[in-house]
Amino acid sequence: MHRFGVWAPKAQKISLKWRDQILSMEGPNERGWWTLEVSEATCGDKYGFLLDDDPNPYPDPRGLRQPNGVHDLSEVHDHNLFEWHDKFWRGAPKVGSLIYELHIGTFSKEGTFDGAIQHVPYLADLGVTHIEVMPVAAWAGKQGWGYDSVALFATHEHYGGPDGFKRFVDACHANGLSVILDVVYNHFGPVGNYTTKFGPYLNADRKTPWGAAVNLDGEGSDEVRRFFVDNALMWLKDYHCDGLRFDAVHAFLDLSAVHFLEQVAVEVERLSATLGKDFFLIAESDLNDPRIVRSREASGYGFDAQWNDDFHHALFTMLYRPKAGEGSYYGDFGSIEDLHKSLVNAYVYDGQYSVFRRRKHGRPPTGLPTHHFVNFDQNHDQVGNRAQGERLEHLIGLPAAKVAVGLLLTAPYIPMLFMGEEWATSAPFLYFADHEDEELRKAVAEGRRAEFAGFGFEGDVPNPEDAETYERSRLRWDEQSIGKHAEMLTWVKALIKLRRSYVAFNDGDMHHMRVNTDAEKRILILERDEARVLINFGEQPYEFALLEGEILQLISQEGPVVAENRLELPPTTLAVLISSTFDVENRQVARRKRLSA
Amino acid sequence: MHRFGVWAPKAQKISLKWRDQILSMEGPNERGWWTLEVSEATCGDKYGFLLDDDPNPYPDPRGLRQPNGVHDLSEVHDHNLFEWHDKFWRGAPKVGSLIYELHIGTFSKEGTFDGAIQHVPYLADLGVTHIEVMPVAAWAGKQGWGYDSVALFATHEHYGGPDGFKRFVDACHANGLSVILDVVYNHFGPVGNYTTKFGPYLNADRKTPWGAAVNLDGEGSDEVRRFFVDNALMWLKDYHCDGLRFDAVHAFLDLSAVHFLEQVAVEVERLSATLGKDFFLIAESDLNDPRIVRSREASGYGFDAQWNDDFHHALFTMLYRPKAGEGSYYGDFGSIEDLHKSLVNAYVYDGQYSVFRRRKHGRPPTGLPTHHFVNFDQNHDQVGNRAQGERLEHLIGLPAAKVAVGLLLTAPYIPMLFMGEEWATSAPFLYFADHEDEELRKAVAEGRRAEFAGFGFEGDVPNPEDAETYERSRLRWDEQSIGKHAEMLTWVKALIKLRRSYVAFNDGDMHHMRVNTDAEKRILILERDEARVLINFGEQPYEFALLEGEILQLISQEGPVVAENRLELPPTTLAVLISSTFDVENRQVARRKRLSA
Repeated sequence: MHRFGVWAPKAQKISLKWRDQILSMEGPNERGWWTLEVSEATCGDKYGFLLDDDPNPYPDPRGLRQPNGVHDLSEVHDHNLFEWHDKFWRGAPKVGSLIYELHIGTFSKEGTFDGAIQHVPYLADLGVTHIEVMPVAAWAGKQGWGYDSVALFATHEHYGGPDGFKRFVDACHANGLSVILDVVYNHFGPVGNYTTKFGPYLNADRKTPWGAAVNLDGEGSDEVRRFFVDNALMWLKDYHCDGLRFDAVHAFLDLSAVHFLEQVAVEVERLSATLGKDFFLIAESDLNDPRIVRSREASGYGFDAQWNDDFHHALFTMLYRPKAGEGSYYGDFGSIEDLHKSLVNAYVYDGQYSVFRRRKHGRPPTGLPTHHFVNFDQNHDQVGNRAQGERLEHLIGLPAAKVAVGLLLTAPYIPMLFMGEEWATSAPFLYFADHEDEELRKAVAEGRRAEFAGFGFEGDVPNPEDAETYERSRLRWDEQSIGKHAEMLTWVKALIKLRRSYVAFNDGDMHHMRVNTDAEKRILILERDEARVLINFGEQPYEFALLEGEILQLISQEGPVVAENRLELPPTTLAVLISSTFDVENRQVARRKRLSA
Repeated sequence: MHRFGVWAPKAQKISLKWRDQILSMEGPNERGWWTLEVSEATCGDKYGFLLDDDPNPYPDPRGLRQPNGVHDLSEVHDHNLFEWHDKFWRGAPKVGSLIYELHIGTFSKEGTFDGAIQHVPYLADLGVTHIEVMPVAAWAGKQGWGYDSVALFATHEHYGGPDGFKRFVDACHANGLSVILDVVYNHFGPVGNYTTKFGPYLNADRKTPWGAAVNLDGEGSDEVRRFFVDNALMWLKDYHCDGLRFDAVHAFLDLSAVHFLEQVAVEVERLSATLGKDFFLIAESDLNDPRIVRSREASGYGFDAQWNDDFHHALFTMLYRPKAGEGSYYGDFGSIEDLHKSLVNAYVYDGQYSVFRRRKHGRPPTGLPTHHFVNFDQNHDQVGNRAQGERLEHLIGLPAAKVAVGLLLTAPYIPMLFMGEEWATSAPFLYFADHEDEELRKAVAEGRRAEFAGFGFEGDVPNPEDAETYERSRLRWDEQSIGKHAEMLTWVKALIKLRRSYVAFNDGDMHHMRVNTDAEKRILILERDEARVLINFGEQPYEFALLEGEILQLISQEGPVVAENRLELPPTTLAVLISSTFDVENRQVARRKRLSA
C-alpha cells in the first residue's frame, strides 16, 4: 500500500500515473492537497502526476527517488527499509566543530558516495569533526556542484541515490564524524524544475540573481515553506544527517512575522528534542546580520552558525593581490586592520560603507560568541568561482598557504577546510555543470567567458560543460605523501592537534582576544591566555621578544634564529607560542604579568 | 547666498538653472552629490537641475517649495524665517494619546491649513491630544488624499504651502495639541516623480502594489535612505511636528542588517535628544509583527506604535455584515472571539491561517503593552476605500456607532478617531484624486469601477477625478448641533472624559484585562479593576447582574430597567459601570471579591 499525495491548489483535476494505469486523485482538500491510496503500490513502482488536461505525467515534487533522472517518473521509496548501524548516533556537537567541506563528485576517484566512504577513516584521523557535503539533491545531467538541484527530495542517482547517501552517513557515524548537508532553498535549478506546474513556489514579483524568488510570504506560502521545511527535516530524520548548511540565505525575501529561517530553527529544534539528537544549522549569509545566529529569546532566528566571508576576504587579500576578474568584492578588503577586526569582531563590515556594495553594510555582532561563525581560508565558491579554479596554494605558494590555514586553525571561530587543502592538492576546483539543454549549455559556457572578459580577465576560461573540466577538478590522492603535499598535511594535522590541546584556541568570547598589529611591517599577534600566534605577513624578517616561559610550539617554516629570548620570523611565517608558566587558575594575573614583560 | 546640491551618482554633468542662468555644478563628490554655491541666490529664487545633455530643467528632489506645482521649478526657501510662537513645545506625549486623523482638504470649508486652524480650539475642547494629518507633501494636481506625493520635501501649495503648515502646527501647539504627520516612503505618486532621473530611488527587481519598491538595500541605498530619513527629520525639526505616521511599512523590502525603520527610529531618537522633544513614531503595518514596536534593546525597530487593523475588522464585522465588494479581508473576521482576542492580545492573527492572505499570518505580541497599538473603529482607508465612502454610522446607524466608539474609547489601546466621526457626520469620505494626466484620469476612474465590479459590487462608483467627489467628502460642521449628530458628540465627549478619570481605562498590561463573552447571545464584558464595560451585540435585551457598589456611569442608549441590582441592556447597547467601593490599594483583593459576587 502507498498513499500518493501532491499539493496542487489551483488544479481542477489531478490524475496519478501508476504502473500502466491513470487513476483519478481525490482533492483538493482545504490545504490544496490531492491524495490517493493504492493498495497494490509498492516500493520501486514508477509514478507521476497529470495536471488537468495536460497528457504528460510530471515527477512528484516530493518524489523520494528519480532513478531515471529528474525529467522522468518518480519511484515509490521507503526510507525505513535502510538498515542503519549507527545506534549511538547523537547528532552533531556544535562548539568545537571542525568542518571539512567536500564535493562528492570530485572527492574520490569514483565520484560517488561509496567512493567517498573509502576516505572517511582518513578524515577521522585528520581530526575534523564534521563533513559538510555539497548538495546531493537530484539535478538534471551528471556532473555539477549541486546548486542546480530541482528534485529536492530525491538524491542524485549518479552519486548513488538515496541508499548511497545513507551508506555514506552511516560510515561517517561509524568513524565518529557528523554530516552536514548543503541545501539550496533560495532557487531551483534552471533545468527540470516541475514544481511550478503544481503550485506557487516562486514569486515573480521579486527577482534574485537566480531568477524569481521563492514564495515565502505570498499566497500559498505556508505550503511552500512546508515543502522546504519538510525537506530539511527529511535529511535529518531519514538520512541521519547531523546538520544542514543553508545556501545563500540573503536571497530569501520574507516579510512574514515569523521568518522562514526562524520557522526552520523551531521545527528542527522540535525534531531534535523528539529524536534526542543535536542538529546543527548553518546559514551561508552575506548579510552580516547577527539576527540569523542570535537566539530566538533575543528575537534572533536561532541558527547555530553562519559562514563568515569577511574573515576569508581579509585574510586572502593579505596574502594575495587580486587582479581584474578575481572577485570585485576583494576591493573592500586588503589591510591588516581588516584582518584584525575580523578576528575580534567576526565581521569586518558591521555598518560602514562598502565600495563593492555601494552602500553601508552589516551591524555589530554584539554579545555573540565566536562559535556562531564559520571561518575558512578557501571554499568551493572562493576557489571555483575563479575563472581557472585555483586553490589558495596555487596562487600564493606553500609558505603563505601554511600561514593561512595556521591562522584559520588557531583563531577561535569554527574552522572549515575545503577538501584537499590539507595537502595543498594540485587539482583545481573548477566550475562544471552538465545542463542537459543544448542551448543552455552554450549559454552557460559563453556567459561564463563573457562574465570574466567583462571583469577584464584575459586568461583561458574552461568550458563548464566539458566533461574534462569536471575530471580536472578531481582530488589527486596519490600526491599526498609527496614533497610539499606531505609537508602541508603534517602542518594541518599538527595545528588540529594543537587546537585540541589548549582552551586558549577555543574560548568563544571575542573580548578575551587581543590582537596587536604593526601595519607598516605587516605583523599580526593574536594573544589569548597562554597562547600567542605570531604572523609575519611582511617581506622582511621580524624579531619578536619571547615572554618568560614561552615555548615555540609550531612554526610554519624553518629558519628562526632564537637567541636571548628573541625569535626571528622569516617573511610569510606563522609561529605558535605557548607559555609553560601560565597560571591557569589566575589567568587574569598571569596575563597582566606577561603584558608588562 | 545659497548652496545648491543634488544627489546624482550616475550623471556625467549636472547644471543648475537659476534665475536666467545655466551654471555648471561641481561634482560628483564621493557620495555622488553635485553642489554649487551661488552668492547672489536668495529665498524665492526659482531653480532646477539639468542632467547631462537633457535640455529640460527638473525640480530638485529635495526642493523645499514647489510654488507652481511639482512639474515646475523649485524655489529657494529658508525654514528659519518662520516665526514660531510655541516656545513651550516639548513634543508629543505617547502613553495616553488620543489621536484624531484628519484630511486638510476636506476638514474645513476652505480645505486649507488656515481653514483647519479655525477648528483647532474645538479639537482641544473635544479632548483629543494628537492631530494626525494625512500627507501634505506636494503632489500633482489639486485634490487628493496625499498618498500620491512626489515632491516629498515641499508642502502642497493648494493647502497653503510650507508656511501654511507651520501656522497650523503652531496653532495646534498653542492649543496644547500635538501634530503627527502621515508620511509616504514606500512609493512615489504616479505623476510628477522626477527623482528617478537623478538616482536609483527604486528597485525594479521588486514589485509592490504601487509599482517598483523603494531601493532600501541595493546599490546607492544609503543615499535613498538618507533622502527619506532626512525628510522625516525635516518635518520634526523644521515644521515642529511631534511625530510621524509611516504609511504601509509592509511595502518596505529591506534585507539590510539595520532595517530602514530601525534607522529612522535611531535617527529620530538622536534628534529628539538634541532638541529635547519627544517624537512619536507610528507605523501603518499589516504584518502583525511585534518587531516593529519592540524596543531596540530587544532587537526590535523601536517604533512607538503601530496601527492595528485587526481590532477594526473584528469590531466592524460584529456590527455589520460586509457584502460583496466591501473588503474581502473582512472574511477573516466575524466572531465575538475575534473581538475578544483583539482586546486581550492586540492581534487577532498571531500565527494562524488567514483565508484572505492564503497563508499563516502574524506572531504573538508577547510582553508588549497596549500603548504600542493604535486602534480605530474607522479611518480614511476603511471609509474611503469603500465604493461609496460610507462612514461607519452610515452603515450601521447611530446606536451601533455609539457602541463602536464606546468600546474604542474604553479599551486600553491608543484610540484614533477619524475626523467627523465624533458627530457622526453625514458627509462620506470618498476616494478622490486629481491626476493631471488625462489618460491616467481615465484609467483611475475606470480602474476603480472595474475593481469594485470585479468584487461583485453593483452600486454606483463615484469618479475619483470629479471635483464633485471631492466636494461631497467635505465635513458638514453646521449639522453638529442637530439631532443624532449632537447626541453622538455628547457621547464621545463623555467617553473621553471618563477615559481621563479612571486608571482602569489606561492600564497597558494586556494580562490585567479580563474579557468574558457569550457567543450565542453576542455579549461581551470587558473588565479591569473598578471598571466594567458591558456590550450587547445581540438582538435581544440582556440582563446583567450588577456587583455590589457598582454604578452605571454611561450608557449608549436609554431604556435599561434597573431593579434589584440588575441592569437590562437593550440590543446594540454599551454601558460602562464603575465600582464605588473598589479598593484601589488592594486591587487584587477587591477584584476577587467582585468576581465571586
